[in-house]
Amino acid sequence: MPHIALPPSLPGILSLFAYRPETAGPLNALAEALLRGPSSLTRGERELIAAFVSKQNECVFCNASHAAFARAQLPNGADVVRAVCEDYRNAPIGEKLRALLAIAAQVQKSGRAVTVETVEAARAEGASDQEIHDTVLIAAAFCMFNRYVDGLGTALPPDAAAYDVMAERIVSEGYTAPKG
Amino acid sequence: MPHIALPPSLPGILSLFAYRPETAGPLNALAEALLRGPSSLTRGERELIAAFVSKQNECVFCNASHAAFARAQLPNGADVVRAVCEDYRNAPIGEKLRALLAIAAQVQKSGRAVTVETVEAARAEGASDQEIHDTVLIAAAFCMFNRYVDGLGTALPPDAAAYDVMAERIVSEGYTAPKG
Repeated sequence: MPHIALPPSLPGILSLFAYRPETAGPLNALAEALLRGPSSLTRGERELIAAFVSKQNECVFCNASHAAFARAQLPNGADVVRAVCEDYRNAPIGEKLRALLAIAAQVQKSGRAVTVETVEAARAEGASDQEIHDTVLIAAAFCMFNRYVDGLGTALPPDAAAYDVMAERIVSEGYTAPKG
Repeated sequence: MPHIALPPSLPGILSLFAYRPETAGPLNALAEALLRGPSSLTRGERELIAAFVSKQNECVFCNASHAAFARAQLPNGADVVRAVCEDYRNAPIGEKLRALLAIAAQVQKSGRAVTVETVEAARAEGASDQEIHDTVLIAAAFCMFNRYVDGLGTALPPDAAAYDVMAERIVSEGYTAPKG
């Protein structure tokens, strides 16, 4: 049951975007730049970081939706996403991505939890400054999105197939396409 | 010492905005809409919530800068900001604002920590749905900004007077004015 009067036909953050379009614009622009804009991390890798952080924050809506967006954009997506959300340390992914997920896991706790050692370990696996930057900002942004979605008690979609429908739309049109 | 190569002449988030303009645009647009756009919460009250959450996250740069922005826009600002950052429960503020800060304190921990009771207590003090919404999103957004600033190890300004200089600029021009 949401804490404020939100459009009942829309789940999760979609109900908040409809409620407050003034902030929906910048939030969607941020998601588009971070998750789909130019970066040497693939779109699938960035959605995987988003799904992973949402899982740590126990945000069911964001985890399920970004897991669907990651599955749709990663080779062997279903297995990789499931494994990373369960235990990224032993998931079937490259060592650079694993080292970036270790940074994301620290950011989820606190910005002050990120250590020189974890950053240097990512650099040793070939991560660039911009990849480290983008990982930190994606993890930080999902600490916002997750709190926004759960802090206002938004609803889940009645049918989990909704996440795959959303994924088709995000993959083809992105976050800033006009809705509806 | 920052974790990546940032412009050494710029402190805190300003160095990150210069490093990655693609994400700086949406982040500044979000701050402008949330902290200065139309709302029945005053700009000073919204900056106070930002400073308070940054204090809970122990983000020195964001706490000091938004404390300066709040001081500049609140009656009796210096005393109010200091008292709220020390202990909002006993600070000299109205009961509606105190109840909204209680929501922000829960959001800082987790979106899932926000309770029906805390939301109802704010409503009993006269808080509207939109004020509750804006409080949750401001608190959530500073859980992002704080992690971004500290997660990349950005520098503090060499002189604390820099925060008041920034405040003059934010109060008169806002977050989205062209820099420099």
